[in-house]
Amino acid sequence: MEPSTQIVAIGHALVDVLSNTDDDHVASLGLGKGTMTLIDDDQSQKIYAGLGPAVEASGGSAANTAACLASLGASVQFIGKVADDDLGVVFSHDIRAAGVRFEAPPFDSGHPTERQISTGISLIMVTPDAEKTMCTNLGIGSYLAAEDIDTAAIASAQIVYFEGYLCGKDESRSGVEAAIAAARAGATLVALSASDPAWVDLHRDELWSLLDRVDILFANEAEALGLSGQPTLEGALDALAARVSTVAVTLGAEGCVVHDRTGVVRVPAEPVGQVVDTTGAGDSFAAGFMFGMVSGRPAADCARLGGLAAAEVVGHLGARPLARLSEMAAAAGMA
Amino acid sequence: MEPSTQIVAIGHALVDVLSNTDDDHVASLGLGKGTMTLIDDDQSQKIYAGLGPAVEASGGSAANTAACLASLGASVQFIGKVADDDLGVVFSHDIRAAGVRFEAPPFDSGHPTERQISTGISLIMVTPDAEKTMCTNLGIGSYLAAEDIDTAAIASAQIVYFEGYLCGKDESRSGVEAAIAAARAGATLVALSASDPAWVDLHRDELWSLLDRVDILFANEAEALGLSGQPTLEGALDALAARVSTVAVTLGAEGCVVHDRTGVVRVPAEPVGQVVDTTGAGDSFAAGFMFGMVSGRPAADCARLGGLAAAEVVGHLGARPLARLSEMAAAAGMA
Repeated sequence: MEPSTQIVAIGHALVDVLSNTDDDHVASLGLGKGTMTLIDDDQSQKIYAGLGPAVEASGGSAANTAACLASLGASVQFIGKVADDDLGVVFSHDIRAAGVRFEAPPFDSGHPTERQISTGISLIMVTPDAEKTMCTNLGIGSYLAAEDIDTAAIASAQIVYFEGYLCGKDESRSGVEAAIAAARAGATLVALSASDPAWVDLHRDELWSLLDRVDILFANEAEALGLSGQPTLEGALDALAARVSTVAVTLGAEGCVVHDRTGVVRVPAEPVGQVVDTTGAGDSFAAGFMFGMVSGRPAADCARLGGLAAAEVVGHLGARPLARLSEMAAAAGMA
Repeated sequence: MEPSTQIVAIGHALVDVLSNTDDDHVASLGLGKGTMTLIDDDQSQKIYAGLGPAVEASGGSAANTAACLASLGASVQFIGKVADDDLGVVFSHDIRAAGVRFEAPPFDSGHPTERQISTGISLIMVTPDAEKTMCTNLGIGSYLAAEDIDTAAIASAQIVYFEGYLCGKDESRSGVEAAIAAARAGATLVALSASDPAWVDLHRDELWSLLDRVDILFANEAEALGLSGQPTLEGALDALAARVSTVAVTLGAEGCVVHDRTGVVRVPAEPVGQVVDTTGAGDSFAAGFMFGMVSGRPAADCARLGGLAAAEVVGHLGARPLARLSEMAAAAGMA
């Protein structure tokens, strides 16, 4: 018998198209380095044509988190939508090969426009400082409706986790609402990643009002400030913790700070040999943290597990772990 | 005005699906480590389903050679066939982004079966010893007909280069013949890579008879022995050089030996920090060697350029260069 799912992760199914480039190229496209910009098919083709040779690897924020959770040894299911095309096959293969349950069939009919909608891609430009600049064409992944949600799996899971990118779009609102309702019907905690400072700015009101039904919030410093509207990290932590019982704010090389009902704890970052590509850093932190939670660990341990997972992922190109994270956790005495 | 094409490379357009695995997995599939096996759609799906998470990167033997030639600074065109699907878009983007001329439109009609034929893929299993085991589904790439050949470009080029994988298949025979005829009509040298020892065994007679019209042959030791039917490297070199004016045999870590009209020269391998993945080693050697030839260099220099290119490519995952090979050649005094 399969173990019951501990964590359900919900997000956009994306394939990353990773290409090394320089700051001038990013600036010439009018993009802010380190940001994520949503693009349509035409923009996608134009930007892709200007990129150097690329490598494709499955991505998507919550999907990366799911892959890390499986690598840590958690039982995890991913809910997201792919089209009936080559990249849909690639995404489906990779998430299953990572040990994640993924049951969505390719979606090839009933979509809301007459044109065939493709599996989503993210064009990721990696600059020499290992920073990523993303242009994402969400494709079919946006159209997450209530009927796409496995409510039974959510109701019996310990945590349902959303990427913030899913919150604020009309196309996915009914899916998000159905998932939260399923969590509330069970005793399932709701976790949310703020995803991106620019996304927070664009959808601040919707994300803020969602926090009433969120139990665990992941954000970096810029996202925490933007979401709370506070000018300082301390102010932001207080404002967010008044609405969400566990708030984890990542601080890059400075590690992270967690505010939960037991108080506030700061945890330094894990040492990294060389930071190669920061794609997936936040996703993997959330995975480690939630793995700690479902294992019944205190906040400081959860944060340290998050840091361990992030340290592995930023050490190579691509957003999913290459090493077995469960072995790294065991080596650190936290298996 | 664009520079006229110096080298035309012809081969299968493939996207590599690269996955790390272990020797036991390769053996459990009944595959010989280090070999290339042709597979059909059903086998492809079955083997892919058993692979771990993978990364996709454009490949194809002659296409890799073309990408290396462009990186060295040569003017190069690739002729090969992609389907009108996501992987066809990926292949076309990457070869052009590498600086190679590639004019074939996606092929989506007139193919010889009723079923849609996809862009070719190669499932590449990389074992911890950096050896590659390949299972290739050639897809639409096999159906290279005379009308797909840019005879004008070939007739005015200095070299037309074939991967051996293209020679011996009924589907591509008319394309190969048209290309050789175009070379003979001009003053274009014909270069051939033996590709694979198992391929040589399967198609020995056809490859051997083709040598009458080949000016430059690339082979590793096993391929040279198989093709010539000789038991020793010296015997093989003599037998092959009796039919082909320039024979370059690669010897892995031992470097290579070249037999041409000026005599026989041995060149040691370039030092490599760590061999990560030998995919593309032979392809890049051929590129460096031919770059030396079109630059009018003697055989020893050609072989050294081949070794330089190969050293770059085996130092990382994937078959195409990450560094600018022209800068490496310049640093070695051979720009």
